[in-house]
Amino acid sequence: MPQLIFKGVKKNDVKEISNSLPYRLAEISDTPVDYFTIEVPETMYFFDGKEFEMYPLIEVIQFDRGVEIEEKMAKEIQNHVKKFDYSECEVYFTHIEKENYYE
Amino acid sequence: MPQLIFKGVKKNDVKEISNSLPYRLAEISDTPVDYFTIEVPETMYFFDGKEFEMYPLIEVIQFDRGVEIEEKMAKEIQNHVKKFDYSECEVYFTHIEKENYYE
Amino acid sequence: MPQLIFKGVKKNDVKEISNSLPYRLAEISDTPVDYFTIEVPETMYFFDGKEFEMYPLIEVIQFDRGVEIEEKMAKEIQNHVKKFDYSECEVYFTHIEKENYYE
Repeated sequence: MPQLIFKGVKKNDVKEISNSLPYRLAEISDTPVDYFTIEVPETMYFFDGKEFEMYPLIEVIQFDRGVEIEEKMAKEIQNHVKKFDYSECEVYFTHIEKENYYE
Repeated sequence: MPQLIFKGVKKNDVKEISNSLPYRLAEISDTPVDYFTIEVPETMYFFDGKEFEMYPLIEVIQFDRGVEIEEKMAKEIQNHVKKFDYSECEVYFTHIEKENYYE
Repeated sequence: MPQLIFKGVKKNDVKEISNSLPYRLAEISDTPVDYFTIEVPETMYFFDGKEFEMYPLIEVIQFDRGVEIEEKMAKEIQNHVKKFDYSECEVYFTHIEKENYYE
């Protein structure tokens, strides 16, 4: 945690993104870099009865870091994704409460 | 967003469902139809030490649209799923706050 | 529901875990055992430009059962996982409100 879950971004693009994104997010959020995980689930999308090529949609699951920091994190993620061949990129944050987390 | 994530429903059934469900939900919730995404993750379930055939379980991730509208959305989803060979269908809503969403 | 979603645990280990874990959690939380589902999504992790072997990370999605019960559930899950060859195990709870759930 933070967990970044990438949908609609090609596996090879995420692989490349994983070279620098966690380091930048670690700086922005003052969090150890090895806390970050970058996940690409196997998944398919459908629309109008056929497969649909999903646009980049990234979920970040983490403790609430406040809107100011998260806005910077979102922008950093979007910048990384848009270096590849995507015209849009949605990012949203899901917050876990500390009392609901056990390690 | 809204994202619909289908588990326990066969890929081909979801494919067919994707022909009409987004249009009906768009009407019910007064939301542009192309905001809806329908996802089928690759996933397995286990119980009692063996693979388990999951029943339909659909998560809807969206901004809170109020219980009245969401109840209608849930019923519409369930009706679409039950046209196929499933006896039950669970639907639940996860809400994203607007301030936690970046496009 | 409760849904247990296992990441970073081998499919065969989860299969074995599924023999006893739901029964123990059912006792702890006073919930019928067949309400529990154990899921293993197909997913990959990346770090530093290469595939990353994820550590065990288990999400539990359920109605809020209070910290006291959930702490016991988390410990039980961790004990089950650590019987296998893992040195750590993170567990977190995501709560669904009853009014957002339709069956």
